[in-house]
This record gives sequence, C-alpha cells and structure tokens, in this order.
Amino acid sequence: MQIPSFDPALRTRLQTAVDSKTKPLGALGRLEPLAVQIGLIQNTDAPVLTRPAMVVFAADHGVAHAGVSAYPQAVTAQMVLNFIAGGAAINVFSRQHGFALEVVNAGVAAPLWTADTPGLVDAPVGSGTRNFADEHVHQAAMTADERDRAMALGAQRVAHHASLGTNVIALGEMGIANTASAACLMARLCDLPVAQCVGRGTGLDDEGLAHKRAVLEAALAIHIDVRDPLDVLACFGGFEVAAIAGAVIEAAKRRMVILVDGFIATAAVLVAARVAPDVLHYCVFGHVSDERGHRALLEVLDARPLLSLSLRLGEGSGAVLAYPLVVSAVAFLREMATFASAGVSERSGS
Amino acid sequence: MQIPSFDPALRTRLQTAVDSKTKPLGALGRLEPLAVQIGLIQNTDAPVLTRPAMVVFAADHGVAHAGVSAYPQAVTAQMVLNFIAGGAAINVFSRQHGFALEVVNAGVAAPLWTADTPGLVDAPVGSGTRNFADEHVHQAAMTADERDRAMALGAQRVAHHASLGTNVIALGEMGIANTASAACLMARLCDLPVAQCVGRGTGLDDEGLAHKRAVLEAALAIHIDVRDPLDVLACFGGFEVAAIAGAVIEAAKRRMVILVDGFIATAAVLVAARVAPDVLHYCVFGHVSDERGHRALLEVLDARPLLSLSLRLGEGSGAVLAYPLVVSAVAFLREMATFASAGVSERSGS
Repeated sequence: MQIPSFDPALRTRLQTAVDSKTKPLGALGRLEPLAVQIGLIQNTDAPVLTRPAMVVFAADHGVAHAGVSAYPQAVTAQMVLNFIAGGAAINVFSRQHGFALEVVNAGVAAPLWTADTPGLVDAPVGSGTRNFADEHVHQAAMTADERDRAMALGAQRVAHHASLGTNVIALGEMGIANTASAACLMARLCDLPVAQCVGRGTGLDDEGLAHKRAVLEAALAIHIDVRDPLDVLACFGGFEVAAIAGAVIEAAKRRMVILVDGFIATAAVLVAARVAPDVLHYCVFGHVSDERGHRALLEVLDARPLLSLSLRLGEGSGAVLAYPLVVSAVAFLREMATFASAGVSERSGS
Repeated sequence: MQIPSFDPALRTRLQTAVDSKTKPLGALGRLEPLAVQIGLIQNTDAPVLTRPAMVVFAADHGVAHAGVSAYPQAVTAQMVLNFIAGGAAINVFSRQHGFALEVVNAGVAAPLWTADTPGLVDAPVGSGTRNFADEHVHQAAMTADERDRAMALGAQRVAHHASLGTNVIALGEMGIANTASAACLMARLCDLPVAQCVGRGTGLDDEGLAHKRAVLEAALAIHIDVRDPLDVLACFGGFEVAAIAGAVIEAAKRRMVILVDGFIATAAVLVAARVAPDVLHYCVFGHVSDERGHRALLEVLDARPLLSLSLRLGEGSGAVLAYPLVVSAVAFLREMATFASAGVSERSGS
C-alpha cells in the first residue's frame, strides 16, 4: 500500500470554497490551510472527523541508566498505571475532547501489570531498550528485528482504530529518558550538533543538562557510522518511538489525519518522513514545546504547529489540545455561509 | 459594586494543587497559571465553568465615510443578518463549543431588521457614530450620554447572562471601520504614534493603509486635547466598543471569566482598564491577531494571548477558539491525580 498523493483539482476547489465564505479573504488565518489540508487528506470537499483516537505508546530506554533524566526509570511504569487509572493529563484532555484513549506497553522495563489489565494493550517488544551510550559495550538500542516489531505494533494499533471508524489519530508517548533518544535521532538525521538538539526534558538543572549533552555527544561518536534512517532508529530510538514511526506511515497510507505531539513524537515523524516523505502531508503538528530542539526540528520538517503553550509533558497532550482547532477548520468549511448565500457584499475593490 | 480582589492564600493553595499533579513541575505550561487565574476569579479551589456565553455587539462608525475600510458600511448590517441566520464563523465556533450566542444591535446605521427578530437584542444607541475624522465639522464619535448608554447596554447584557448562570463570557464585535476606532483609542491612551497602531483591517492594500493612517493622524490632531479615558472613548470609540468596555467592567464585578478576542475587543479592554485597572485580572486573552497594533497593545496590558493563528476576523472568533484551553486548565486542576494519590515517584532531585 502506497501513501496516496493529493488531488490538485480538489485543492483548487477547496481553496475556492474557503474564499467564498462570509469573511475577509484569509481572515481565518491558519484555520484556512488546515481546512484545505483535511479535505485533501480525506479526498473530499466535505471532510468529517470520526472517532478520534489517542494512542499512547510507553517504553523504557537503556540510556536512562546514563543519568540523563530528572526522574527515575520506574516512573514510566508508574505513569502507565496512572494512565490506566485515568489520572494523567492525557486522560483528562482525551475525555474533554471525546478521544478514545489506548495505552500500549511497547516495552516498559518494570513488569508492573498483568496481561489482562483492562485498557492496556500489553505488547512489549522488549524489557526496555539497551543503553546506546554505554562506553564499554557499544550497542544499538534495539536490534533490527525489535525495531521492525515495534514499527509493526504501531501500524497494527492504527489499523485497529481505523477498523473501528477512526479517521483522526493522535500519537503520544511515555518513556523516561526519551528526549535523549529523540535528540540523538534529530542530531544524526538532521546532521546538527547535539547541543542544538538536547534540552532539559522533564526538568534537568544546568548540571544535569551538561551531563546529558556530554553523554549524547559521546554516544553519537560511538555510533558515528550509523546513517541509514532505519538503522539510526534502531541505534538511538525507543520502542515507543519506533511504534509511532510505524503508526505514522500506516495512518498516512489510510488517509488518516495524524495529530503530532511534541519533541519525541516529532522525532518519530522525522524518522517516518525519511522513509516515506509523503507522510508529512498527513500530519497536523499540535504544539511547539519548550524542549530545546523542537522548534528547529519543526523547521526542518517545514511544519507549523498550531499551539505554543510552553507545554513540555508529552503523553500526546499537545496533539489533543490542538484538536478543537482541527474541528473548527472542518466546521467552518462545512457550515459557514458564502457571500452569495448570505447576501453579504464583497470588498469594494473587487 | 467594586471589582473583587484576589485572595493571596487561595493563590498559594491553587499553585500547590497544580504542582502536586502527576506531571513534571510546570510541564503544562501556560495552562498552569491559567488554572490558578480561573480559581482566583471564582474564588474557589475547584472552579467550574457554566453556561459560556458569546455576546457580539454590532455598530457602525461615522469614520467609515472617510474611506478607511476595504468593505462598504452596509456590510455591518448584512453580517448581523448573517449572524442571526447562523452562517458566520462565530456561529459555527459558538455551536462547536456550546456557547449561547447573542447578537446585539448597539447602533448599526442601516435599519435592516424589525425589533422582534428572534436572536437579536435590538438596542441601538444611535444610527452609527459621527465621523470623528471630519475635517470640516470637528466632532466626537458620540456624546457622553451616548457613551454611557452604550456602556450600560454592555453591562446589562452581562447581567442578563449572569442571571441565566453564565460565569464565562466572550465579547465580540462587528462594525465596518472599527479597527480605525480601535487604533485611535490605542494611540491616544497608550501615547503611541498612530503608525504603530494602524493596520489593514479586513484587507486594505498599501494605498488604502496609507490613506487610513493619514486620516487617523489628522483626526488625532483635531482632538489633541482629549485625554481622559472616558472622553477618549466618546471621541474615537464605537457603540460596540463602549458596550464591550461596559461589559468588561460589569463582568469583572461579577467574578466572571472574560474571554477577550482581537484588536478591537482588546482596545475596549484598554479603555475599561484605564477606568478600573483590576478588570485585567479577570481577562483571558484568546488570540493575538495579525492586525498591526494588536501585539503592542497586548504588551501594554501585560497580556499573553493563548493563541496565535493569524486570525483577523473579529466577531469574537479568537475568544471562542481559545475556550477549550480554558476548559482544559480547569479540567486538569479538578481531575488529574496527584503524585501521592497515583503512587508516582517525584523527581530524583527532590
């Protein structure tokens, strides 16, 4: 299955429809190209958003053992339980906006739950990744097989939701140390100095940040020859990052609207886009976070996020919070009167 | 009735509640101070938003006859009919977010409707304002009595909605040439050069913009001695602008959350704040528009808008589109688990 391309004739029709609405030309700003994009994604003049779904992939990172996070690794599993109990931010925002929320154990280190926990898709690819920053044992975070299984897991979750009627999917993540993983993916795939890609994550102080930067600089040097996008993903990625990359490609193939969250999710989109550049047409970027690197990464992808609220949480929060704007874009396209239908004069110059 | 001040002890409690939630400190970014603000406005640890209402005040401006808008004056009345028919952007977004929408004729020039049009509050203060930019007849836009009646109209609509249970109110406007009015209010009350306050409105070209700037520069010179905030409002304001200023003061007195839209609504808040500075504590600024002057005006008010989507529509659109974020702020404060309740480890450093 290929990623479908957009119909240029439809693009023209959608733009004409937007311009005919009772408002000054362009007055709905960013919502106008967004409406056109959603129409093109769904290949229709009258897009409809159905059964929005939020899938949060959780996994642990071996690089956490290099002391690159302000929180202990145990928090990944604790937060998964918090998701299942309904108490995390992403639960609150998913309820608010009517998202079906699914939590996927893509490879958390601690075995804190049983396979039949309701609300959990328990499909770990492994018990956390390996530490790609280990100075003594030079190793990739995961094997090629593990990477492929993680990507297939993401694709499979997308297919599952599509079968239930979902045509708009948000992808979130939880994984202590995964900003370190994302920073390395960005540095290598964008060929940028690691200092431009590394941030404070969940709240490192200056000393912690300097340590993280040094650790990742050394790690990138250890794996200096790894350049192929999928090899880079295996080397520095996490199971949740690979799952999101796989999910993005599958969702684009299925003409779904993909709501992209913060730095880690965007790094996963970067990987997906290096494999299949057309996925970017299907992505709506929800939020530019305060995490250093995210803004630059969005620029590399020529992506303009809808929100800028200084969030630095992950979980998919920035994607779900932007969703009402996507709904607004579709709603004005479908529901607003035209100058002709409402009997409103157009501008005097025209 | 005075504008209530906030309880500092409650502020501390609300901040502690925000910090105890299962997320890194500050990770919900702008939503965190917003949650605290809503709690303080409602004077409670557990705020609730009830019966959100959108009131759109429409009026005409004599200064339109000086050729400062890309659209003919007739559009004000046409758009009011469009609001009533449900076909404008503000209708679509109000429906989306469950706002009770009310359209108020505060002084439209054209008598296009009957008093019993359902959905219209027909309470014109006059048949449009006078042209404050007339070189031959030096005149204020409205008399002191007209200004007071317009402000009272705004206050009365707020009281009406409060009586129906509204505790969050968005204030919108429609009035051809009202960016010219707002620019003059800003220039005079902020003591800024008019060039910094004048923008393209609904879409003036370069020539139109230069003309608008020259007209308003001359008008400000004609009325050089007008300095008192309420005199400035009468001189340069519109009936809809005065109504919003009155509405803002009334809503603050009633501890309502005030959702502020774009440039014109912000100029009305500026007037209100010069009369009663504490109104600003009750305002949530929805959107920074592309209209030149709006960003600078927000800075004068020390206001940080939630959205930046290049909207330049008015109608209250930027206020209503930001509302889901206000709901999110209240929801996370009320619904998220705490570290203690969820059994999640706090950061290793603490």
